[in-house]
Amino acid sequence: MTEKSLLTALQLRLEHRFTQMGLLQQALTHRSFSVDHNERLEFLGDAVLNLAVAHMLYEALGALPEGDLSRIRAQLVRQDSLHKLALGLDLSALIRLGEGEMRSGGPRRPSILADALEAIIGAVYLDAGFDAANALVRRLFEQVEISPAMSAAAKDAKTALQEWLQGRKMQLPQYEVVQVLGAAHQQTFEVACTVVEKGLRVLGQGASRRAGEQAAATAMLRMLQPSSAS
Amino acid sequence: MTEKSLLTALQLRLEHRFTQMGLLQQALTHRSFSVDHNERLEFLGDAVLNLAVAHMLYEALGALPEGDLSRIRAQLVRQDSLHKLALGLDLSALIRLGEGEMRSGGPRRPSILADALEAIIGAVYLDAGFDAANALVRRLFEQVEISPAMSAAAKDAKTALQEWLQGRKMQLPQYEVVQVLGAAHQQTFEVACTVVEKGLRVLGQGASRRAGEQAAATAMLRMLQPSSAS
Repeated sequence: MTEKSLLTALQLRLEHRFTQMGLLQQALTHRSFSVDHNERLEFLGDAVLNLAVAHMLYEALGALPEGDLSRIRAQLVRQDSLHKLALGLDLSALIRLGEGEMRSGGPRRPSILADALEAIIGAVYLDAGFDAANALVRRLFEQVEISPAMSAAAKDAKTALQEWLQGRKMQLPQYEVVQVLGAAHQQTFEVACTVVEKGLRVLGQGASRRAGEQAAATAMLRMLQPSSAS
Repeated sequence: MTEKSLLTALQLRLEHRFTQMGLLQQALTHRSFSVDHNERLEFLGDAVLNLAVAHMLYEALGALPEGDLSRIRAQLVRQDSLHKLALGLDLSALIRLGEGEMRSGGPRRPSILADALEAIIGAVYLDAGFDAANALVRRLFEQVEISPAMSAAAKDAKTALQEWLQGRKMQLPQYEVVQVLGAAHQQTFEVACTVVEKGLRVLGQGASRRAGEQAAATAMLRMLQPSSAS
């Protein structure tokens, strides 16, 4: 297929016909290919995606508090979720990369595909406004089941951290309350999480000791797995 | 003034008349006052604010790369900026708090006011859609000067961390390259930042040693100043 027919097919899959085709082309352009690359569109698309998913969750999960909505959103918009959606749209065939990236497997790299998808969402936003971009995000996530149970899965950073360390034959993390701030009825617990073998010690805060531990475990996981951080 | 006339005056200042007045009332309700509090609206409003400011910066700062836009946005939407805007709208007089919060200075607490402003932005979004909420954010930030120079100010986390520590008579942070990942033309530097007196050690990653150090300093500042993190 020619590039033009590939772009036409992509627009059919997106269910959006671009008025400004240059935006779609830029969204598909990696920085290794041209100075007119997709990173600024990705910045915009990331914000569109966050709002569109926030609104979906606000509607679908009326009973859940803000913290649960945040955690579920982080799960939905993380790189591996976006990578799967990008594969579904067959972006690999359309992404424009420099020669070096092309040879080293760039068209299949999850970060490159996820970023291009965010850039496409940003391009639709600029091309036709928020409602069109919002509708695209809802179509993309149509197949993804959204349930309050995701919160429980997303919530337990302590378990995830423990499993990550055990999988690498490392010792369990240590938690320690560093300080308790605020008056009796609204205390904040500051908890340190230490992973001895990595020489890392980070802090987390929460309204209970347990919430502080979860926050510290989340921060530690972000340190240990920077690529999957939201 | 009665509550009703106060709410009318606020709507004039917002330049938005609510169709669903319940949304505005909920946006002004702190969790200490009622179970119908503003935290879910704040979650939504935070996402609206991030997109609206992203779009403003995308338009105003056409020459800046994505990383600079991110840093400038983080500066614009941080708690103390929102707190100032909330004071300009006189939200203190309208916020609904539980008795304990009321007595302990809640109506003037920056976090409570900043959160209520985000909740109001979320309420306008639900009441009248993205364009109305976007217009509100642009009016709020009309007085705020946006210039590429903000990027330089926002950029230097290492300097900010050094000043924070010096202000508390602590030793300078230590930076150490932990590992270098990837092929020669696209390396990622993983840098650890240690603050000995706090017993903290965190990681940052970047495309250069300096960028890795900045990322690690940013992570350390977030640990040390959790309330001002974006």
